Amino acid sequence: MAVYTEVTDAALTAYLQDYDLGAVTSFKGIAGGVENTNYALQTHTGQYILTLYEKRVSQADLPFFIGLMDHLSSAGFPCPKPVRNRAGEALSTLAGRPAAMVSFLEGLDVKHPEAALCEEAGKAMARLHAAAKGFDIHRTNALAPHGWPQLVSASRAGADGVEPGLETLITAELEHLAQEWPNNIPSGVIHADMFPDNVFFMEGRLSGVIDFYFACNDFLAYDIAVGLNAWCFDVDFQFDPAKSAAFLKGYQEHRPLTETERDTLPILCRGAALRFLLTRLYDWLNVPPGALVVPHDPKAFSARLRHFQTVVHARDLGIA
Amino acid sequence: MAVYTEVTDAALTAYLQDYDLGAVTSFKGIAGGVENTNYALQTHTGQYILTLYEKRVSQADLPFFIGLMDHLSSAGFPCPKPVRNRAGEALSTLAGRPAAMVSFLEGLDVKHPEAALCEEAGKAMARLHAAAKGFDIHRTNALAPHGWPQLVSASRAGADGVEPGLETLITAELEHLAQEWPNNIPSGVIHADMFPDNVFFMEGRLSGVIDFYFACNDFLAYDIAVGLNAWCFDVDFQFDPAKSAAFLKGYQEHRPLTETERDTLPILCRGAALRFLLTRLYDWLNVPPGALVVPHDPKAFSARLRHFQTVVHARDLGIA
Repeated sequence: MAVYTEVTDAALTAYLQDYDLGAVTSFKGIAGGVENTNYALQTHTGQYILTLYEKRVSQADLPFFIGLMDHLSSAGFPCPKPVRNRAGEALSTLAGRPAAMVSFLEGLDVKHPEAALCEEAGKAMARLHAAAKGFDIHRTNALAPHGWPQLVSASRAGADGVEPGLETLITAELEHLAQEWPNNIPSGVIHADMFPDNVFFMEGRLSGVIDFYFACNDFLAYDIAVGLNAWCFDVDFQFDPAKSAAFLKGYQEHRPLTETERDTLPILCRGAALRFLLTRLYDWLNVPPGALVVPHDPKAFSARLRHFQTVVHARDLGIA
Repeated sequence: MAVYTEVTDAALTAYLQDYDLGAVTSFKGIAGGVENTNYALQTHTGQYILTLYEKRVSQADLPFFIGLMDHLSSAGFPCPKPVRNRAGEALSTLAGRPAAMVSFLEGLDVKHPEAALCEEAGKAMARLHAAAKGFDIHRTNALAPHGWPQLVSASRAGADGVEPGLETLITAELEHLAQEWPNNIPSGVIHADMFPDNVFFMEGRLSGVIDFYFACNDFLAYDIAVGLNAWCFDVDFQFDPAKSAAFLKGYQEHRPLTETERDTLPILCRGAALRFLLTRLYDWLNVPPGALVVPHDPKAFSARLRHFQTVVHARDLGIA
């Protein structure tokens, strides 16, 4: 949530000489985005978002992220569309960082989405999964089960200082999920971070989905599990079955889940809760000096994990 | 440089019901502004900046700041114009904070302004001083000489840890300025913080001046002294007489300085350097826990102060 890299007017002018966007009329750092530096850019031709990729994003992954946004927007999915320079490149360099410019999306993120918006989000996720078909770059999910043991090792010593009993919760869950994780359900490109702050609405309608920097190839139903974690809990971490039912209804309007996907959904929800618990715990215990970002509270996801541990049947998630 | 106060979509919607601005199409926190929280707001009728005033800004001063922007913009000066709600109020409350909305100004701030832009800035400062005439609210400059002893007391113990010799520099300068500070030069409303990051340009022309939250009544030439500190030093803190000459030329095109103003300008420059040195030193030594802002380096202004201590005649500032 900060500007990590300053871009001088001189550097911006030089950068834009490779583009056909007309004169700059405004350029402001955006106070959002934990991983990257984002600027809102206005020129005589329109509005754009200029992103500088900071070190937490691997340069090797950028062709996947930018290619995916290009593919999705060309398929009619409402996401930022990369802007190409005169050389036809969507990725270049600015202020010593890899940088890309994308179209500006109208809309507002909704902090506490009601069930009707959860349904819209579910619909959009299914559309995203369909629109991504044919995208031919592959990116492994670094935060899938094979990546969790390392996160547990890095954080278990400090876990009980954050919340009593947390070390046992995560180590036992790690073991349980290693046994129960499915391997035979439909996969494809998923967003993997479709939280309400990455979804814009205008007058009750979904107008855009942003922030594809965790997107990867994984189980489609795992993306739904992330969505249920992200959209279906109240501020006091209580599960709201009406929101979950609405999210799943929206998704299944475009793509009904298979029998196996339904059966494994409770386990996938536990996995998604653990994934966000582990990265939040790691960030909570490792705030770098001079950090401009306040880390998210891990306890929001230990609460979710404890809830999903009580769910045995997909019907308890409100699935129709 | 951060969003201190989150505004939910629900709070924003409720707030905007008092305004005639149409539906919201975008709302983003701006990563700029040390004192307040700023959002860029777009609606069907245009673009606006929404500011929430945080605790460092005194509520009692808000009618001065907002009234001044209203007065200046009505007089044709390019600054943000407060937007009034249906009740005719420019100041109201949002997310528990005093809040105001102003018009959006096009343009970019220039990090390293060349002499030609320094001249534009000088011209704009003189126009601001003229346009402010007739504004009838008064605000004492809290950071004028009477306010410095308290800042020195609060910071002197830590000063030499920031830079060897700094405690002696500031205590001796405080004494010197107490004796030499003028009392008989023209005064009026001044900006008092017209640094390059508060001035927008488009294609070499000044398009706007923002951030009036240090504005006050004081010597007009003291504002010029702030301007020379702000615009006429290179990144390695070296004084650039060509930029200073350009700034003063621009200013005097609209209002030639009096003989006494010229004579006291070197002392006023020392005072302005000390004022920014003291507040930066205080902020450097008192970073609050969880601060989202990296404090500015005080050494940029100890260097300026040491430079201005060598200036005896206004002609050494490049005055024509």
